[in-house]
Amino acid sequence: MSLSTFRFGDGNPQYDAQGRLRHLLNTEGLREPEMLQILDTAESFLSIAQRSVKKTPTLRGKTIVNLFFENSTRTRSTFELAAKRLSADVLNIAVSTSSASKGESLIDTVDNLMAMQVDGFVIRHPEAGAAHLIARHLGDSALVINAGDGQHAHPTQALLDVFTIRRLAGPIEDRVVAIVGDVLHSRVARSQIHALSILGCPEIRVIGPQTLVPKELSALGVHVYHDLQAGLRGVDVICALRLQKERMESHRLPSLDEFHRRFGLTPERLQWAQPDALVLHPGPMNRGVEIASEVADGHQAVILQQVAHGLAVRMAVLTLLAGAAGGGENHA
Amino acid sequence: MSLSTFRFGDGNPQYDAQGRLRHLLNTEGLREPEMLQILDTAESFLSIAQRSVKKTPTLRGKTIVNLFFENSTRTRSTFELAAKRLSADVLNIAVSTSSASKGESLIDTVDNLMAMQVDGFVIRHPEAGAAHLIARHLGDSALVINAGDGQHAHPTQALLDVFTIRRLAGPIEDRVVAIVGDVLHSRVARSQIHALSILGCPEIRVIGPQTLVPKELSALGVHVYHDLQAGLRGVDVICALRLQKERMESHRLPSLDEFHRRFGLTPERLQWAQPDALVLHPGPMNRGVEIASEVADGHQAVILQQVAHGLAVRMAVLTLLAGAAGGGENHA
Amino acid sequence: MSLSTFRFGDGNPQYDAQGRLRHLLNTEGLREPEMLQILDTAESFLSIAQRSVKKTPTLRGKTIVNLFFENSTRTRSTFELAAKRLSADVLNIAVSTSSASKGESLIDTVDNLMAMQVDGFVIRHPEAGAAHLIARHLGDSALVINAGDGQHAHPTQALLDVFTIRRLAGPIEDRVVAIVGDVLHSRVARSQIHALSILGCPEIRVIGPQTLVPKELSALGVHVYHDLQAGLRGVDVICALRLQKERMESHRLPSLDEFHRRFGLTPERLQWAQPDALVLHPGPMNRGVEIASEVADGHQAVILQQVAHGLAVRMAVLTLLAGAAGGGENHA
Repeated sequence: MSLSTFRFGDGNPQYDAQGRLRHLLNTEGLREPEMLQILDTAESFLSIAQRSVKKTPTLRGKTIVNLFFENSTRTRSTFELAAKRLSADVLNIAVSTSSASKGESLIDTVDNLMAMQVDGFVIRHPEAGAAHLIARHLGDSALVINAGDGQHAHPTQALLDVFTIRRLAGPIEDRVVAIVGDVLHSRVARSQIHALSILGCPEIRVIGPQTLVPKELSALGVHVYHDLQAGLRGVDVICALRLQKERMESHRLPSLDEFHRRFGLTPERLQWAQPDALVLHPGPMNRGVEIASEVADGHQAVILQQVAHGLAVRMAVLTLLAGAAGGGENHA
Repeated sequence: MSLSTFRFGDGNPQYDAQGRLRHLLNTEGLREPEMLQILDTAESFLSIAQRSVKKTPTLRGKTIVNLFFENSTRTRSTFELAAKRLSADVLNIAVSTSSASKGESLIDTVDNLMAMQVDGFVIRHPEAGAAHLIARHLGDSALVINAGDGQHAHPTQALLDVFTIRRLAGPIEDRVVAIVGDVLHSRVARSQIHALSILGCPEIRVIGPQTLVPKELSALGVHVYHDLQAGLRGVDVICALRLQKERMESHRLPSLDEFHRRFGLTPERLQWAQPDALVLHPGPMNRGVEIASEVADGHQAVILQQVAHGLAVRMAVLTLLAGAAGGGENHA
Repeated sequence: MSLSTFRFGDGNPQYDAQGRLRHLLNTEGLREPEMLQILDTAESFLSIAQRSVKKTPTLRGKTIVNLFFENSTRTRSTFELAAKRLSADVLNIAVSTSSASKGESLIDTVDNLMAMQVDGFVIRHPEAGAAHLIARHLGDSALVINAGDGQHAHPTQALLDVFTIRRLAGPIEDRVVAIVGDVLHSRVARSQIHALSILGCPEIRVIGPQTLVPKELSALGVHVYHDLQAGLRGVDVICALRLQKERMESHRLPSLDEFHRRFGLTPERLQWAQPDALVLHPGPMNRGVEIASEVADGHQAVILQQVAHGLAVRMAVLTLLAGAAGGGENHA
C-alpha cells in the first residue's frame, strides 16, 4: 500500500466495525452524534485552560506522535500543547518530503513508530490521503488525526470553526454562513462545508473569483457567488480563507491587490452582511490581502477565540479517540 | 503596535501598577530589592540541582514558551531545563526572522500563543525592544523574560554574573569589576553595568579598543580604558565578553590576532589584576581570541560555575514572576 | 583533550575502578555478565510497552541529553521515548558539525551541559571515538551512551540484535549468524561481531563484495565469504546491513543494481539458508537494494520486532547505568 497508488475508495475508515469513531480524518463522513460529542467535550476543556493547573491525567503514559511532513509551527504547537495538557508524552517528528521517499516509506515510518508502541499519530502531509492511508493500515491499533492533507481535509480546523459559530453566533441550524476566498485549493473550506452540512446549516455560501470558486463547487450543496456584496447579503458568519500566495504563480489570481479590491474583508464591506456578523479566519492572516487589519482586530473578529477553541477541540478529539481505543483494549 | 515603530519611551513595563515585578526585560530599571530577591531565591535552587530528583512542582500545569528568533542552543537549553525542573510544560518555537515578517506578526504570534493560555514567554530576538513590546502588549496576562534582544539587554546573563561575583568574590559593594572587549555591541555588557551599579559596585571599568569602547560609554557611569594593563590594575573581577566575529566586517576590528595581542586574557596579563581575580565569560568562548585556553581552564576562571548559576537564576526568575502572576490571579 | 588527537588506547572506560559498568560505548570490551544483565532487564521492559500506562518512575528528576551531531530521527526518537517512559526529562540538542568546531568544543559543550547537572548523554557523532572521549572526560559524573560514532561502534543496535536472536531464534551458543553487505564501513556490523562473540556464537560469517568485506576482517574471528550462496548455507540468522549509498562515490561499489544482483536478499536466496532463518535489518531499509520488499515484509523478517526490542534495550541500558551512577552518589 503506497501513497502514490492510494485511492480514497468506499468505506469510512474513521469508524470501526462496531461503529465507534477510531480516527479523525475528515468531517466528510463524520456522523452528527460523534461531531456533537466532540463539540460538547470541547466545552468542558475550555474551562481547564482557565485553571491554574491546566492538566488532566487523561492520557498519562500514552505517547502521541506529531508526524509533520509540512512545516507548521502553529498547528504543531496546538496539538503538542493539547497532548501535553492531557499528560501524554509527545514525540515531534518533522520530515521534509524532499528527503523522504514517498508511499512505501510513509508506511515504513509509521510501522517503526508503532513498534515503539505509540498510541496515536497527528499527521500533516502535503498529499491528499496520507492520513487515510495510515488509518487504513493501522486499523484499531492506534488513533490517527488528520492535521491537514494536501488540498483535501483539515477536520480539526473545521470542528473548531463550527464550535466557534455554535458558541458565539448561536444554533448552526439557523445561521447563514459564507466562506470567502480561494475555496478551490482550500482543505479548510472543504472540511468546513461538510461540517456545516452535517450540523444542519441551512445555507452555505462560497464567494470568490471564478478561477478559485468554480461553478462545479455547487455539487457540494453550496451556493456560489463571484460578487462579494451579493454573497455577503444576510450572512451571519463570514469565514475568511488564507490566500496561499503560491497560487499566484498558477495564474489563477491576477494580483494580491486585485484580490483585496474585489474580495478583501474591510469594515465597509462587513456592513453588507448581518449586523455583528462573526468573522473567522484560520490564521495565519495576510493582513491587507484577504482581511483588513481593522477587521482582523475589530469587534466582529473571533480569530483568537478560534485558537482557544482549537486547543479545546483537539483535547476533546484526543480524549475521545484514545478512550475508544482503551475500550477496544479491554475487549482484546 | 509594531516592532518597526517601537520606542522604549518612559515607564518601566517590568513592574505593574502595584509595583510588583511582572516581567524581566532588563537590569536597567530593576530595583535592588527585587534583584536581591532573585539572587537569594537562586541560592535555594542551587541545592536542588545536587539532589537525586532535581524537580520541584512549582510550575506544574503551567506552560512556558521558548520563542527564539535567533539560534541559541545554549540559552534555549538552560531555559528549557529551568522550566522543566520546575515541572512546567515547555513549548520550543524557533522562528527564523527571514521567514517571519516583522512587527505586527510578532504580536500576532504572541496573541495566538496567548489564546492557548500559555503562562510565560522566554524571548530572544535580533531586534532591540522585542521583549519590551511583548510585555507592554501583554501587561499582567503572562510573564515575559528577555533572553537577549539585539544589542540591548540580556538580563538573566547579567544576574547570573552578579550572582557569581557575590558568591565567589564577596560583597559587590567592595569589588572593582572590569568588563573587557566589545562593549559597544554587547547586550551582556550593558546589562552587567546596570546590574553592578544597582548592587552598589564602587567601580566599574570597561576596557577595549577605542572603536569598541568609545569615550561616550562613560555616560553609563563607567571608567573607560583603552589599555588592558592600566584597566586591570587592582581589579577583583574580570568579565570577558565574547568577540562577535561578525564585527570584523564592520571594520571596527583590525583582526582577531591583533585583538588578542592587545586585549586577550592570558595568564601573564591576569597578574596585572588582583591576585586570584575571578574571570567570567558568558560563553561560548573563542579560545585564543578574547581568552587564552590556559585562562579559560585555569583556577581563576569560573565559567562553568556561571552556567550552573545561570540555571538557578533562571529557575528563580521563573518562580518569582509566575508567583506574582499567581497573586494577580487570586485577585481577578 | 580533543577529538582530533583522540586515541582509543588501552583501558576500558566503560567500567569504573570497581568494575561497575558506567557507560555503554561499545560491545567490544563489554563483559558477558553485564551484557546478559542488559538483555534480561530488557525482557522486563518489553511488557511495560504493552501496558495502558507505559511509564515507570525510574529516572524521575533525572535529565538525559540527546546530543546528536548527525541527523537521525529514528535513533533519536527511540532514545527520547526510552528516557520519557522512564520519566526522565529529555533535552534534544542537534548540532550540525559544519557549524561546530571540532574537538575542544565538543568537551566545552559537554562541560556546559554538565554544569546544568544533567545525568546522562546519548551521543551520536560522525567521528569515531567521540563517545569514548566524553566518557573519559566525565568519568563517574554522568552516564554516556554511544548512539553511533563514525564507522566505529553502535552498541545498542548490536544489543537489540542479539536480544532479538536470543528471543526469536534460540540460544546464541547454537546459532550460525551471517552479516551481509558493506561490513567494512559499518559500525553496526563491528558491534554485532563483538556482541555475538562475547555471547558465544559458534560461527559468525560476513558476506559481501571484496571491496566491502576484505579478507583482513577475518582477524575479527569471522568467516569471510564473497559469494552469497556459499555464505548463507546452513545459516540460522541473517543480519542485512543498510547500504550507504554514499559509498558509491568511493568507487567501492559498482552500482546499486549490481549489488542487488549479487548480494540482495530475495525470497529465492533465503532458501539457501536454514529453513525459517531469521532476517534482521537495522533500518531504514533500501528496499530493492540490500533487501527485496518480499523479504522485508515476509514472515522471516523480524525488523519491526527489532525496533520494539530496541526500545526495551535502551530503557534497560539507561536504567542500569543510571542505577550504577545512583550507587556512586550514595558513597560520595
